[in-house]
Amino acid sequence: MEIRNDVTAKVVRFDAFDRDVVQAARVSTQGSNSDGKGQSSEGLINFLMRDRHGSPFEHTSFTFLVEAPIFVAREHMRHRAGWSYNEESGRYKELEGVFYLPPGSRELQQVGKPGAYIFETGTVEQWNAVDVGFPAAYREAFNQYQEMLIQGVAREVARMVLPVGIFTSYYATCNARSLMHFLSLRTKKENAKVPSFPQREIETVADQMEMAFRAAMPLTHAAFEKHGRVAP
Amino acid sequence: MEIRNDVTAKVVRFDAFDRDVVQAARVSTQGSNSDGKGQSSEGLINFLMRDRHGSPFEHTSFTFLVEAPIFVAREHMRHRAGWSYNEESGRYKELEGVFYLPPGSRELQQVGKPGAYIFETGTVEQWNAVDVGFPAAYREAFNQYQEMLIQGVAREVARMVLPVGIFTSYYATCNARSLMHFLSLRTKKENAKVPSFPQREIETVADQMEMAFRAAMPLTHAAFEKHGRVAP
Amino acid sequence: MEIRNDVTAKVVRFDAFDRDVVQAARVSTQGSNSDGKGQSSEGLINFLMRDRHGSPFEHTSFTFLVEAPIFVAREHMRHRAGWSYNEESGRYKELEGVFYLPPGSRELQQVGKPGAYIFETGTVEQWNAVDVGFPAAYREAFNQYQEMLIQGVAREVARMVLPVGIFTSYYATCNARSLMHFLSLRTKKENAKVPSFPQREIETVADQMEMAFRAAMPLTHAAFEKHGRVAP
Amino acid sequence: MEIRNDVTAKVVRFDAFDRDVVQAARVSTQGSNSDGKGQSSEGLINFLMRDRHGSPFEHTSFTFLVEAPIFVAREHMRHRAGWSYNEESGRYKELEGVFYLPPGSRELQQVGKPGAYIFETGTVEQWNAVDVGFPAAYREAFNQYQEMLIQGVAREVARMVLPVGIFTSYYATCNARSLMHFLSLRTKKENAKVPSFPQREIETVADQMEMAFRAAMPLTHAAFEKHGRVAP
Repeated sequence: MEIRNDVTAKVVRFDAFDRDVVQAARVSTQGSNSDGKGQSSEGLINFLMRDRHGSPFEHTSFTFLVEAPIFVAREHMRHRAGWSYNEESGRYKELEGVFYLPPGSRELQQVGKPGAYIFETGTVEQWNAVDVGFPAAYREAFNQYQEMLIQGVAREVARMVLPVGIFTSYYATCNARSLMHFLSLRTKKENAKVPSFPQREIETVADQMEMAFRAAMPLTHAAFEKHGRVAP
Repeated sequence: MEIRNDVTAKVVRFDAFDRDVVQAARVSTQGSNSDGKGQSSEGLINFLMRDRHGSPFEHTSFTFLVEAPIFVAREHMRHRAGWSYNEESGRYKELEGVFYLPPGSRELQQVGKPGAYIFETGTVEQWNAVDVGFPAAYREAFNQYQEMLIQGVAREVARMVLPVGIFTSYYATCNARSLMHFLSLRTKKENAKVPSFPQREIETVADQMEMAFRAAMPLTHAAFEKHGRVAP
Repeated sequence: MEIRNDVTAKVVRFDAFDRDVVQAARVSTQGSNSDGKGQSSEGLINFLMRDRHGSPFEHTSFTFLVEAPIFVAREHMRHRAGWSYNEESGRYKELEGVFYLPPGSRELQQVGKPGAYIFETGTVEQWNAVDVGFPAAYREAFNQYQEMLIQGVAREVARMVLPVGIFTSYYATCNARSLMHFLSLRTKKENAKVPSFPQREIETVADQMEMAFRAAMPLTHAAFEKHGRVAP
Repeated sequence: MEIRNDVTAKVVRFDAFDRDVVQAARVSTQGSNSDGKGQSSEGLINFLMRDRHGSPFEHTSFTFLVEAPIFVAREHMRHRAGWSYNEESGRYKELEGVFYLPPGSRELQQVGKPGAYIFETGTVEQWNAVDVGFPAAYREAFNQYQEMLIQGVAREVARMVLPVGIFTSYYATCNARSLMHFLSLRTKKENAKVPSFPQREIETVADQMEMAFRAAMPLTHAAFEKHGRVAP
């Protein structure tokens, strides 16, 4: 049984460049024989972002390998359009006992009302409850899981007792448009036109994906930032 | 803390009839001024199903309310195309302590290899392990969850220790085509052309949805059966 | 051969009410045993629209029958997510000779640059060119089409000469969320936060759909208006 | 004014290999720490195809540039799931006068009934009707289009008289799963389990895409062929 405090999203491969957006967008005004002249790439990408012409951003592809607790995977897989997933299966393999414990930097107190929560630092008592409660619940669940497996109970049955804090892993493939949509909902930023209140753990996934996105497509990312982090 | 052995999927509303399929299909050969003559509804629906013309089946709508453990919701929400979901949130509400325990009829032993598992009746020892292990793990998790809430730990943090066997509820809306796709993958039937190996619990959801589907669209359902339960 | 100046989108059926949105949204905070108390429907719908929580709007369904020229159908069918279509086929039926001629109110001159065109009233010379050019091109195309059919040329070949101004008809089914996305892009309104420059003919389709939407879901439509006609 | 007899689909870029499928599929049984052991790639891909586990095929990307008549683009863009498009616009650019004429090898006679058409070689009279009718209709349409443009009529209005046989160009991006779905419907093959009756011109697009697919992913393509050309 292992405890982890971090969540990771690594780029497995990508084929996504600013020029792909420009190329796809220019077909509308120049057809297939584009000579590449006209508006600068930066100007064109800014225009597309501002006026929300989203389809030129779709001719790109990113594949990530995510290692995160099940409750993060649950939130992630609600994103349907332009996303593909394959995940580790509790039916087909015995799950390893790797469990998530909030790191010390994690704020524990939720203040406010649904849709507008603010989080604050946990008290000593709260951290005590977490430091005691998490290992106790995880250990009992994992012990019972293993005991049932020893008795020959099917994995798909035994896993029912495992917590949503257990780690899973999955491949997630998206394009720049679906990625921006994900980022707009799963990060919390001052400059966002529409406020979002993501759970901190999926925001960590989003932050790592955003770094890869910015590195691969700097003009597109800059335009996303400039226009209030609204997916086109 | 409550134990449940059943999983439910209730029709909330639907607007889905065989004639909707016929109407949509006939526009291709008769335009908008159809006089309704031509092939019988049954013949037309059979032809569409056999040759996999799927789009005429999409002009229909079913909304279900599902009460099921999280591991069922997880499998369900992998279905993206033509499905919409809204689910109870462990971030926005305190979760009730309702947990799933396999009913006595549930087969417990998994035999065979991935992709072709067969299930067999559990032994006395296996049932003992389940009858002891499930309540023990559930109780520990729920106690720790409640204790953390009492200390003021945020719901979204405290819920991490809760098991995937806890009940959740969600609205799921689909059309007849996306429903048939779901049924083809989440039921196990002799007459299916492509074998499927659904977990029993989501099959229970599928069975209930199929009853509603058959009642609403008898000709479509009969054609689905006749042509090997392959979604068009 | 017939000339039409109008484009129509008629509601065939719908199952879409404000209460469906409220019901789906409340499951997240109240679970399946909602007592309906809490925020008013209007307040909740406004909150969902403002913060762009889109999924509760998806548990609704509208089916329209559209009669419009092919160039309108082409623009319409670029909308993929949450839309289903079935259209009259030039392969399976002989197309009727109904063609679109812009009505006298149609502005003919395009001023400005791509992405920000403005339209102005046509001159006498321009209307002359249209009044002569449209019937001449339409007649020649339709005559050649009919001549080829008489000779036994396949419909799918003969139709290649027919213009994109010929009428087609199709069923289009969507939900309130996908409909709002369509409306945000295919109408031009002062109060829209993001400017759109739809071609007038598809805007006519959108206007008719919006009337049906407003009548069925007045609170949702009001919130859409209030928050700048941005689809949630 | 130019006449073309061919339709082209060129690979612009791709990031799609058999190993991507294997990698995504193995996460379900091996998690993220896969040692790569187990079933051979070929065996695994065959199993996924046979039992229609489609999602592992989605972590791949192909971008094509298609040059084809509008009636082909219309059929292509009916494919929604897993496809992205950007097309030359008759609103934003003046269309070039490139028109499609069926090549001599094109069968002209349609025999049979909807859903099961067979095509046969055209007669001399039929070819005469085509050789006369196509240029006549195309020329009249293009002349009127140009005349209206000279008068300052907006491109989006003038283009209404242009035929669906005029060439357009578009970028189309898909993954291996959505591509196989397209191929299953848009090619006509002896070994297909489900019969399809694509129009010859879109089949030409499909044939070129299939060559690129087979070259990039030989094991996947072989499994697609082996299991009756049914998309998983």
